[in-house]
Amino acid sequence: MSELAQHTGQVLALVRERKPRVHCITNTVVQGFTANMLLAAGAIPSMTTSPEEIANFVAGADALLVNLGTFDPERRDAVGIALEIAAEEGVPWVLDPVLIECSPARAIFARSLAGREPRVVRANEAEFAALIEGAATAEALDKFAIGHLTVAARTGAIDLVTDGTRRASVANGHAFMAQVTGIGCAESALIAALLAVEDEPFGAAVGGLVALGVAGEIAAEKARGPGSFAVELVDALAALDVAALNARAKLS
Amino acid sequence: MSELAQHTGQVLALVRERKPRVHCITNTVVQGFTANMLLAAGAIPSMTTSPEEIANFVAGADALLVNLGTFDPERRDAVGIALEIAAEEGVPWVLDPVLIECSPARAIFARSLAGREPRVVRANEAEFAALIEGAATAEALDKFAIGHLTVAARTGAIDLVTDGTRRASVANGHAFMAQVTGIGCAESALIAALLAVEDEPFGAAVGGLVALGVAGEIAAEKARGPGSFAVELVDALAALDVAALNARAKLS
Amino acid sequence: MSELAQHTGQVLALVRERKPRVHCITNTVVQGFTANMLLAAGAIPSMTTSPEEIANFVAGADALLVNLGTFDPERRDAVGIALEIAAEEGVPWVLDPVLIECSPARAIFARSLAGREPRVVRANEAEFAALIEGAATAEALDKFAIGHLTVAARTGAIDLVTDGTRRASVANGHAFMAQVTGIGCAESALIAALLAVEDEPFGAAVGGLVALGVAGEIAAEKARGPGSFAVELVDALAALDVAALNARAKLS
Repeated sequence: MSELAQHTGQVLALVRERKPRVHCITNTVVQGFTANMLLAAGAIPSMTTSPEEIANFVAGADALLVNLGTFDPERRDAVGIALEIAAEEGVPWVLDPVLIECSPARAIFARSLAGREPRVVRANEAEFAALIEGAATAEALDKFAIGHLTVAARTGAIDLVTDGTRRASVANGHAFMAQVTGIGCAESALIAALLAVEDEPFGAAVGGLVALGVAGEIAAEKARGPGSFAVELVDALAALDVAALNARAKLS
Repeated sequence: MSELAQHTGQVLALVRERKPRVHCITNTVVQGFTANMLLAAGAIPSMTTSPEEIANFVAGADALLVNLGTFDPERRDAVGIALEIAAEEGVPWVLDPVLIECSPARAIFARSLAGREPRVVRANEAEFAALIEGAATAEALDKFAIGHLTVAARTGAIDLVTDGTRRASVANGHAFMAQVTGIGCAESALIAALLAVEDEPFGAAVGGLVALGVAGEIAAEKARGPGSFAVELVDALAALDVAALNARAKLS
Repeated sequence: MSELAQHTGQVLALVRERKPRVHCITNTVVQGFTANMLLAAGAIPSMTTSPEEIANFVAGADALLVNLGTFDPERRDAVGIALEIAAEEGVPWVLDPVLIECSPARAIFARSLAGREPRVVRANEAEFAALIEGAATAEALDKFAIGHLTVAARTGAIDLVTDGTRRASVANGHAFMAQVTGIGCAESALIAALLAVEDEPFGAAVGGLVALGVAGEIAAEKARGPGSFAVELVDALAALDVAALNARAKLS
């Protein structure tokens, strides 16, 4: 799997070179942090959710993130328009079904979106279980990925990525990552940034998770708690290089 | 009052052990910071304001925060639904009538909410004055607490907590706390987190204010300005222990 | 131009003394950061966008910021009401036409607002080009400023400020400022804070840009990446004094 770590470094370098614009329909809790993480990775964030202008923003974007953490009617309308444009223009998109296990209405909406060919679906175990209406085992996610022509990226202490034929697991990260809001959202955004420069969903999903996991480990070495960790994480992502990825990636 | 400091340490330990979910209907300015402060305390935040799903989120929550800093029709509808469910399910809730002195419409709404049995109302002096339509003296707050079956927590340089029969004052804190947005909102959220594990409103209000005040003093010792203070505050809250509370609490 | 640096120090001191309230109709991505930057400068932020209460908030404010980064119908209604009240009450206001080059609807709205006598319009080159429907040269901005009775502040590596008869350029700042979300929004907010205490738009625009640029240089000396830079920037703005402004201002 060392070629995947190497590949991640190359794709990150491409992000920094091309500065793709990643349009994020995401929740208001994490907008600022997500924007700063995308900037740290070298991408350019935009975040409007207005139905009147979402089409223009998505048409000119290099990738799209649809995060369901804020679930108001305006955002749902915006998602519908955004996905039509993304399909027309070939903009790759990532689905992040935040906390759908807490809300049947949100889960139904997420399931309908999963049928619209997201390149990657990133979620934790509880969210995937709600999405597929069953235990989110590796086998179930293989099946989901094949059935939906997507890549499933299940994050947790050890992340699992599958496109139905290949699986990778990523063991990078740090316990502080569960104590900062928006880390999962940042993972999804970072995957979208990688997709923006190279539309190979399996590699982008693995790459985004390895990159954030390694940055998290570097940040944790300097942090004194979850507050300083969040700050160090942005710094570490901005400074992340191939050498650190090769040395630290825990891929299997 | 040393038993209150001791008690605060015990309740904080319970929060870390049980990881209660605190649902926050709060303003978009502070959502990220509030979520990070709750996580630092050991609680799990959720923050949807969608009327379609708020009932599900509140029914499964261990405590509810209603913060009026963003006052749009959707949030008002969500508050109405949330309080019905909270009453049915016995979910304790905290009212934070942000800046109601600037907005008659918001003040009227806050007064109607105060009649729906919040366990604690936390506000600064100007906000309490607008809420009770008179000077927010200790005597007036005693009366308010008795009349509304609640605990009033008036924060400022010295905080006052009263349930109408008991009063406590908390003299912890630091001037930096007035230079960071969302500190008052974080106090209210922290009180909700304590209420989630032990529904004793007087102790929860005192505990939340002591905990944040002591964390603020520790953070200020390391901070170089309000920016680093906000970061250190999250770290200090995450590391707060009984020893620090006992040594530093200024309760009377 | 050294008198402008001196003047900036004096106006910043006035902000700290008078603590003006700056009402911000701004986007949800940057609300928290903008609020903290205003607090660091000594001002008091308020941020409601509810059409029901915006009139009360603006009537009591010392300055108003209209930032178009979030463009929902509620915010547009709020802007309309806010500008009526601002005109009636003589509240100075700043227009920040965020990303209008990406959205024709937003650009049309921004052009209509530019006709309602903002004291200052702050934007980057692409935004100004969309606003004036042509290249945002110094000559074009002179003409725009005269035609709209305003001051144009075009920010970038070197900032240009013009009221049509006078021009100033500000060469302060650091590359990290392009890697943190909301720096432009903070520049506009800071200009509004200066306008709140001394309604001299040319000086306020220059002053806000010099202050943030110098704070950015000081912050960059301590930062290890864009995450720590954002924290250091708040600290540096809070500590900014006349000596630093005089020593570092690059005005011509």
